[in-house]
Amino acid sequence: MRNPSLSGVRDAADAVARIALPTPLLTFEVGGTIVFAKAESLQPMGAFKLRGAWWRLVSLSPKERARGVVAFSSGNHAQGIAWAAKRLGIAATIAMPSDAPAAKLAGTRVLGADIVLFDRATESREEIAAALAAERGATLVPSFDDPWVVEGQGSAGIEAATQMAALGCAPPDLVVACCGGGGLASGMALACPDARMIVVEPEGWDDMTRSLAAGVIVPVGPNPPPTACDALMTKRVAELTFGILRARGATGVAVSETEIEDAIRFAFRTFRLVIEPGGAVALAAILSGKVVPGERTLVTLSGGNIDPDQFAAILGRGQ
Amino acid sequence: MRNPSLSGVRDAADAVARIALPTPLLTFEVGGTIVFAKAESLQPMGAFKLRGAWWRLVSLSPKERARGVVAFSSGNHAQGIAWAAKRLGIAATIAMPSDAPAAKLAGTRVLGADIVLFDRATESREEIAAALAAERGATLVPSFDDPWVVEGQGSAGIEAATQMAALGCAPPDLVVACCGGGGLASGMALACPDARMIVVEPEGWDDMTRSLAAGVIVPVGPNPPPTACDALMTKRVAELTFGILRARGATGVAVSETEIEDAIRFAFRTFRLVIEPGGAVALAAILSGKVVPGERTLVTLSGGNIDPDQFAAILGRGQ
Repeated sequence: MRNPSLSGVRDAADAVARIALPTPLLTFEVGGTIVFAKAESLQPMGAFKLRGAWWRLVSLSPKERARGVVAFSSGNHAQGIAWAAKRLGIAATIAMPSDAPAAKLAGTRVLGADIVLFDRATESREEIAAALAAERGATLVPSFDDPWVVEGQGSAGIEAATQMAALGCAPPDLVVACCGGGGLASGMALACPDARMIVVEPEGWDDMTRSLAAGVIVPVGPNPPPTACDALMTKRVAELTFGILRARGATGVAVSETEIEDAIRFAFRTFRLVIEPGGAVALAAILSGKVVPGERTLVTLSGGNIDPDQFAAILGRGQ
Repeated sequence: MRNPSLSGVRDAADAVARIALPTPLLTFEVGGTIVFAKAESLQPMGAFKLRGAWWRLVSLSPKERARGVVAFSSGNHAQGIAWAAKRLGIAATIAMPSDAPAAKLAGTRVLGADIVLFDRATESREEIAAALAAERGATLVPSFDDPWVVEGQGSAGIEAATQMAALGCAPPDLVVACCGGGGLASGMALACPDARMIVVEPEGWDDMTRSLAAGVIVPVGPNPPPTACDALMTKRVAELTFGILRARGATGVAVSETEIEDAIRFAFRTFRLVIEPGGAVALAAILSGKVVPGERTLVTLSGGNIDPDQFAAILGRGQ
């Protein structure tokens, strides 16, 4: 089993730099403090997931590539895998929940992936994907419980630190990252070894936050509340991502659906960016005052795949 | 009188590079052809206007700076001037139409400019601004009829060509630019001397298009139709911008309000960007088929300052 490391993250950053331009590092001000925001919503498929998908797929042997890949995802990892697979000429089969946003289903389909729909409430996506992989002899690429995927996501941190250096600024002293399974957060923890790490989750889905506080993995409760963050509805984090974050002394906070919507409207107004709910939680933690920014705080704006009617409704509720 | 030139545009690009990061160069596909899009909506104040404003203000003498600047604008030039003035510690007074989008009024005010409202239908903004400048001994900074402003806007073309070179691509062979008074279009014509130039305007406001066809400046007709492109409602272009574009053999096309809305929805879906109507006309010209892309086509996504209710309504009409 590969052990994700800073040098692996750096290699991943080099690999990603060959296929995707750096995403912009934007700034905003909160109570007189400048905060840096990494606009991963501007990746070609609209989320940071392209990073981990690319690093995993480009690391496959020719024999593995020929047998294809299988993934499960509510949409952003699906599109990342589909994007990377298309570019490398690898066949991709992806299990997606039937209630995934239409934008994410369409985005995955248009990239040429074979989509298998499942019912989020009654079926196990892990089992479906494992069965598909076994049946086809394909490589299963989990969305976060995978060392290459963690390293790949971490490339966002390398890129941000490089951009901060170009502005004459030292690396981040605080990283505030959105967290579903913890792939991005743990990758960024490796990428930014001197930063305090805070993960952000939607209220009721804050299993990483509670796991970090408890020192052991605690799954999401039996009846989690509804959330607009389809990208962060992970019921249990992995030993891999939890272990990295726990070793770093990371902590977590939970934000409300209202705080998330406020952050989406802030991003519309301030950055003219379309950010999806799951991509706005880190920003929400800062804007709500739940996380107080440090001198060099980096927040993730991790994705922008949201259906137009949902986005319009969120804008409407701000009037 | 300064004569705008390619070397002036290059100097402007150097000056702008010291205060603003390059905006992303995005790509999209139309009928198998890759097109480059310059996302100027991601400038700190949401439009390319920061470029010309910065280059003009940074070129003022200490004495001129001390006396302040005056501008008139429906909003993006206003915010560009206010942004540059704040950064340089110059007092800015800006005449804005009372029906300017709330986002633009608020954006200008928050940057510390002194705003004087006028009625677009009954008052002349040129006269109001000239009177304000005379009264205060301030420098009038027109939104397009100014050699520094033209050179500054052209820096977007230098930046885009540099980004294309980094991708192993020659400079653009076709530039499709939105056009109000022609500042951006004429600046980019200077910046990209080997490209064919096409300007795009809203239907009924296509005075540059008709002027280029006629060989003389033709103003907008007496009762122009309503348009969502508040940024492009210029009734008469300038000899300066017209002269540069005419000398280059530029042509123009007009796009409909429906085509503009389609382009805004395309940018939402494809780039996860918020683009205002006036910023989407060049994209609309490509998507509608009115302009056929060349091998290396560059289109401007020139601004993203739009009120949330207007943006939500445009998304809603796409359902």
